[in-house]
Amino acid sequence: MLQKEEINSYNKRHETVHQRSLDFLSEKLAHQGVDIEGIINKTRYFQVAVPSWALGTGGTRFGRFSGGGEPGSLEEKIADVGLLHALTASCNAISLHIPWDIPQDAGAVKALAAKHGLLFDAVNSNTFQDQSGQGQSYKYGSLSHTSAIVRQLAIDHNKEVIDHGMALGSKALTVWLSDGSCFPGQQNFRKALSRTLESLQQIYKHLPSDWKIFIEYKPYEPNFYSTVIQDWGTSSFLANQLGEKAFTLVDLGHHLPNTNIEQIVATLMMQQKLGGFHFNDSKFGDDDLTTGSIKPYQLFLIFNELVEGMTSGDPEPAWMIDASHNVKDPLEDLMQSLEAIRIAYVQALLVDRVALHEAQEANDAVSAQNILQDAFRTDVRAIVAEARRVDGGALDPIGVFRAMDIRKQLIGQRGEKAIATGL
Amino acid sequence: MLQKEEINSYNKRHETVHQRSLDFLSEKLAHQGVDIEGIINKTRYFQVAVPSWALGTGGTRFGRFSGGGEPGSLEEKIADVGLLHALTASCNAISLHIPWDIPQDAGAVKALAAKHGLLFDAVNSNTFQDQSGQGQSYKYGSLSHTSAIVRQLAIDHNKEVIDHGMALGSKALTVWLSDGSCFPGQQNFRKALSRTLESLQQIYKHLPSDWKIFIEYKPYEPNFYSTVIQDWGTSSFLANQLGEKAFTLVDLGHHLPNTNIEQIVATLMMQQKLGGFHFNDSKFGDDDLTTGSIKPYQLFLIFNELVEGMTSGDPEPAWMIDASHNVKDPLEDLMQSLEAIRIAYVQALLVDRVALHEAQEANDAVSAQNILQDAFRTDVRAIVAEARRVDGGALDPIGVFRAMDIRKQLIGQRGEKAIATGL
Amino acid sequence: MLQKEEINSYNKRHETVHQRSLDFLSEKLAHQGVDIEGIINKTRYFQVAVPSWALGTGGTRFGRFSGGGEPGSLEEKIADVGLLHALTASCNAISLHIPWDIPQDAGAVKALAAKHGLLFDAVNSNTFQDQSGQGQSYKYGSLSHTSAIVRQLAIDHNKEVIDHGMALGSKALTVWLSDGSCFPGQQNFRKALSRTLESLQQIYKHLPSDWKIFIEYKPYEPNFYSTVIQDWGTSSFLANQLGEKAFTLVDLGHHLPNTNIEQIVATLMMQQKLGGFHFNDSKFGDDDLTTGSIKPYQLFLIFNELVEGMTSGDPEPAWMIDASHNVKDPLEDLMQSLEAIRIAYVQALLVDRVALHEAQEANDAVSAQNILQDAFRTDVRAIVAEARRVDGGALDPIGVFRAMDIRKQLIGQRGEKAIATGL
Amino acid sequence: MLQKEEINSYNKRHETVHQRSLDFLSEKLAHQGVDIEGIINKTRYFQVAVPSWALGTGGTRFGRFSGGGEPGSLEEKIADVGLLHALTASCNAISLHIPWDIPQDAGAVKALAAKHGLLFDAVNSNTFQDQSGQGQSYKYGSLSHTSAIVRQLAIDHNKEVIDHGMALGSKALTVWLSDGSCFPGQQNFRKALSRTLESLQQIYKHLPSDWKIFIEYKPYEPNFYSTVIQDWGTSSFLANQLGEKAFTLVDLGHHLPNTNIEQIVATLMMQQKLGGFHFNDSKFGDDDLTTGSIKPYQLFLIFNELVEGMTSGDPEPAWMIDASHNVKDPLEDLMQSLEAIRIAYVQALLVDRVALHEAQEANDAVSAQNILQDAFRTDVRAIVAEARRVDGGALDPIGVFRAMDIRKQLIGQRGEKAIATGL
Repeated sequence: MLQKEEINSYNKRHETVHQRSLDFLSEKLAHQGVDIEGIINKTRYFQVAVPSWALGTGGTRFGRFSGGGEPGSLEEKIADVGLLHALTASCNAISLHIPWDIPQDAGAVKALAAKHGLLFDAVNSNTFQDQSGQGQSYKYGSLSHTSAIVRQLAIDHNKEVIDHGMALGSKALTVWLSDGSCFPGQQNFRKALSRTLESLQQIYKHLPSDWKIFIEYKPYEPNFYSTVIQDWGTSSFLANQLGEKAFTLVDLGHHLPNTNIEQIVATLMMQQKLGGFHFNDSKFGDDDLTTGSIKPYQLFLIFNELVEGMTSGDPEPAWMIDASHNVKDPLEDLMQSLEAIRIAYVQALLVDRVALHEAQEANDAVSAQNILQDAFRTDVRAIVAEARRVDGGALDPIGVFRAMDIRKQLIGQRGEKAIATGL
Repeated sequence: MLQKEEINSYNKRHETVHQRSLDFLSEKLAHQGVDIEGIINKTRYFQVAVPSWALGTGGTRFGRFSGGGEPGSLEEKIADVGLLHALTASCNAISLHIPWDIPQDAGAVKALAAKHGLLFDAVNSNTFQDQSGQGQSYKYGSLSHTSAIVRQLAIDHNKEVIDHGMALGSKALTVWLSDGSCFPGQQNFRKALSRTLESLQQIYKHLPSDWKIFIEYKPYEPNFYSTVIQDWGTSSFLANQLGEKAFTLVDLGHHLPNTNIEQIVATLMMQQKLGGFHFNDSKFGDDDLTTGSIKPYQLFLIFNELVEGMTSGDPEPAWMIDASHNVKDPLEDLMQSLEAIRIAYVQALLVDRVALHEAQEANDAVSAQNILQDAFRTDVRAIVAEARRVDGGALDPIGVFRAMDIRKQLIGQRGEKAIATGL
Repeated sequence: MLQKEEINSYNKRHETVHQRSLDFLSEKLAHQGVDIEGIINKTRYFQVAVPSWALGTGGTRFGRFSGGGEPGSLEEKIADVGLLHALTASCNAISLHIPWDIPQDAGAVKALAAKHGLLFDAVNSNTFQDQSGQGQSYKYGSLSHTSAIVRQLAIDHNKEVIDHGMALGSKALTVWLSDGSCFPGQQNFRKALSRTLESLQQIYKHLPSDWKIFIEYKPYEPNFYSTVIQDWGTSSFLANQLGEKAFTLVDLGHHLPNTNIEQIVATLMMQQKLGGFHFNDSKFGDDDLTTGSIKPYQLFLIFNELVEGMTSGDPEPAWMIDASHNVKDPLEDLMQSLEAIRIAYVQALLVDRVALHEAQEANDAVSAQNILQDAFRTDVRAIVAEARRVDGGALDPIGVFRAMDIRKQLIGQRGEKAIATGL
Repeated sequence: MLQKEEINSYNKRHETVHQRSLDFLSEKLAHQGVDIEGIINKTRYFQVAVPSWALGTGGTRFGRFSGGGEPGSLEEKIADVGLLHALTASCNAISLHIPWDIPQDAGAVKALAAKHGLLFDAVNSNTFQDQSGQGQSYKYGSLSHTSAIVRQLAIDHNKEVIDHGMALGSKALTVWLSDGSCFPGQQNFRKALSRTLESLQQIYKHLPSDWKIFIEYKPYEPNFYSTVIQDWGTSSFLANQLGEKAFTLVDLGHHLPNTNIEQIVATLMMQQKLGGFHFNDSKFGDDDLTTGSIKPYQLFLIFNELVEGMTSGDPEPAWMIDASHNVKDPLEDLMQSLEAIRIAYVQALLVDRVALHEAQEANDAVSAQNILQDAFRTDVRAIVAEARRVDGGALDPIGVFRAMDIRKQLIGQRGEKAIATGL
């Protein structure tokens, strides 16, 4: 485990430059009537969960080029998220994926996580792959399957995932279905949707009273003609049928080209139905790239709606990173995502919301754009760094990670060929 | 007005070849246990409305290259649709657009239409353009506008459109809003949607008890960042809030790239919420091309869902063509659309639905595809022609139109430079 | 090996119905001045290669659901293609992928193929995956790699593939590169393209004088920000720099949404630079679905350009199916593709090219569309079936495959868990 | 004409805050070894042309909502660009569009422009609209038209545009063709491209020896099935056939969804074939929105390639804004574009190119991203403002424009209903 002293010693090297930037920003914001301390505090509070499967190198159907030192057990995954949290003070939760991360001894796992300052976020079921020895196959679907036996298998699996989550202190279940079809005619759209609803109703009944269920949508992949829950409209239909514990989950990569995602976010929030949020970035499809690496302005616009909603009293969704790390070190990739997320969040906090509403009421598109871009063009990295520093993290997390050769240490411990369970 | 005798005389020339094809098809279908007469009768019943604005040459923002002989009055538009119906026996209704087609004497207009065998389909309001002398502008929206005065103007206009429709025997109002924004920040998504709902509620109250209201959605154009009703999910939300007389309207061109439209159709139908349907085709956006000219298989797949729904007892939506005729003679273009629509409909009727359901239940994607493509690959033009012939139409409508030099006659009557009101 | 007598006995059951359809079509075409015999002969001549990797179940990054009886060796792959050819008489060539299919004894392999009536089409190199024991990794590219050592490895591999191909009688090398980047900045576009050109020049030098090299392009996947050869323009640039033995290869799935592929085909053909063609279909990206299963009209429009080019004397490209079979039996999937390809080809042959050119010169878009759709709407399946029958194939290949329980036999021979080498 | 003293007096109000930001930035950059003066000087040199048609309110096919005070003559357009240049010191050239802006007295027009400090950039021909009294129509194309008479009309028009440009001191002709087709079959792709090449060759012959010709490409609109010059590959083919004075022009809005434009820019630059550049922004298609309003990071990435090319000694392209102002005041819109362009340019200048090349050679995607984003996240507005200030422009151009009520003045002079010629 990384010692706070080590981080502090690295921080010292950057302190002067950091303080200089922070002071400038503080003065500049004060001039605009904004108290930088309030922003820093909100930033510190903004924590994003890391999923257990994101700690190993990802791949595509064309192959996977593993890096070394990947975590091979749940305990090692927790250690990796702990390390991330120590460096960034931005990710105080881990999101488990069953069956890749079945906790054998929930108490011990919980205690280990607590040592790293980590909670357990939403648990994720997996009915898009067959597990060895599985009697029935999900090749043609799970909750929507034509066979009641397969549906029951998938329902039972989801119930089991809830049970695991309860033991760890999770409060939500995320359901992503790959169910769909590759060819016109293969699946009866109406029956598939009805069956999915019925299956979800079974799972919903098993949900503890203080839990939520998040229903993810995705237009394609791994099915390439249709997906049972293809868009937010379908997810919304299902969530409304299920009841008040059911919500829609938005994954940034799960949209058709050119979709106005920020508007979907606003629409769901005003209906109090946005439950979860998966961060990543993409240029073409569900590319699962580092958050903020391709469309940082879109990310800011989405945060602008999220802050607008949270300011209006809408419940805050569960935040999680959902990316695949094919060409970067997974931990470095996650640190870049965590940085980009908080930058966008801070920029959204800086939006002069009163002026924006005035410009909107006056249909003054020029001013409205200027107000948003004034926030976006502000260099807020000192705020994000300060929030980390105050909570014991590093001013330059990747710098520390590289200077301390942490990956090399992990390879030493775990080996060059370790491959994380999961994708 | 075109005389049935003229059409008959042209039909004679094609009779032998037509009958040969029909006989072959009849025998082939009989071999498959399908009664061709039943199919022909269903085809005859399938009538599509033509909108009044589709009778003139359309344009783009880069200009418009008018043809000649375009209808300059409501009476001439009715005459054009009457001509189309005489030739094709496929379009027994006209859909008016207010204020382009305000009927001065509703009784006379109704009588004129009846002479042509035409009914009045859904009426369309227009709040996306300012009319000369209009006190307030729709530049920044209508039903969603920030100003209560503009919203009231738009609400009152819609009520007036209902009143016109009642006088003519229409039973539905179609609302398409261009409301939205061109720049991030310009519009408050939440307020805009709330205002739209409130405005629609005012209009809904004015709706006669036997009327329906159709809410169209569209992702972009003429606004290029956001649209208040961007997708079926938003339309569905509004329709559900409004009540049981409110429905979603699907326009084939109003979707993002690669959208699975047939699945949206199935989802809306199973919720009994598909109210209207606008036919056209497109490669890039809302290109408004001739129906079936770009993606005839997609059109068939959509009809496959429509037939599946109608077979299940779901209410039949209101059918309309909504295209723009930039490089073709508008009447010829409409005849090609009417032909393509009925071809797709007949092919969907030929799908062996029992076998399809079996293949679907067995997850036999190969057979399911074969069943659909067997219907699609069948050359059903003889059935479509026969349905026209039985109802007094032409075996070859465009052939008759050209042979009789009808466009030349219209130019003679209306002039080379006549330009239809509307887009 | 399937006996011709078995196929004949199945054909007998369909003979009457088939002959009836063929006679009707023959008469109909004769009426249009078209000799059906000429069309049937051209169809027989149209043969498409099957790649060795297409004989097993494909997967996605989310997993793979294998079927049974997959071929485990090059010999078994040849047997599978031989079986396909026996049933369809449409695929007289196999396209090998090195290193998945290294022929240990080229003479024996050639002889085995000859027994099945098979030739060896273009050979394919693979520098998108590391082979076990490979000293250097392709993780960051191959022919474009920053390291000269990795580039040399990839160059040498391509030379070796040519050598294997020469031993088998192939006459072309297909190069598909996955080289590119996942993040802005990761790769220097200019250097990467220059290096690729230099590497290709090395390979080009090794090319025998009667060989061709085909350069494939693809906009994304497995890299998700940029691809070194992203479009036909880049491939064209490389091919022009290389020389007259270098050509562009078009894969139907390798385009951005809404691309007009048929126009690219026409442009390349008129420059005598279309070398190879990979068939498949897709809705979203490189979905690798059965040819003709999603956009059969686009396939027809592409064939319309191919036939236009071949009629103008342009050289015929090398034809190959490149699909992934995730939910269908691979052999059935290939049979559906082969059928769809020949249907589109025959429809394109039926286009009245003289009338089309007249309509085009007259800017008569209505007639031009009618001419194309008249061909497309014609049910030409009897011609395609007859071409198979004449060459000893089955009137209903999938029917025979299922009736004879061939997959079950293969599972018996090869086992339930056999997994083909390759993707 | 706006007096420098007025601008200065407004600048005084912002001076302290501006200087504070500039000092901070200067110190910060100095710390990184970057001389802010050099950056400011390069920024001052970066001038973008404004097209004459961009000074009035734009519209869509659904209508146009004019603002007031639009320029009605060439002289008023020059005055508007002069005003923009006085405020921003960023646009020292105007780009004329013939026949909308035929200069009756070239000498006087040149002198007027000089008074405003303006040059004449590339001249633009228009063969996508018919002019009143035009004998032949461009409805079905111009340089690619099937009729030699129409092609000659379009060729002659382009020659005439060159002649007008010569009289004004322009050095380039920009050709954008709307030629294409709306329906499959309508146009013969091969003939259309050949005819276009032949027509361009005629125009090319008329080009003075020190002139360039820029060939624009666009995938769709106003034609919705195909465009004769659909992509950079086609433009490149034409430019290479024409000769060394012919170049490709890139318009940011003329690409299919998800295109990697920055890579196209790099590829053209390394071939010395990037001639012109049109700035705007878009979410869906050729939306012609304010530059930098939708995808500012993409704009930065494009500038990163432009700077990479210019640093390598590639010729600098001709820069122009090409946008449509549907909901904003056109002058304010242009000021926002000019600001965004220079911001992106300065950020690209700040990229540590040595470190970037090192990271690229090391395949260190994490560092490469950090280097780019470090530049992008820097708040460079003080540099852009300072470059304006030094050249006599305003620190806050829109602020001055609004404070002085300039639009009101223009309405007073030109009227509320003045409508600019052009789109």
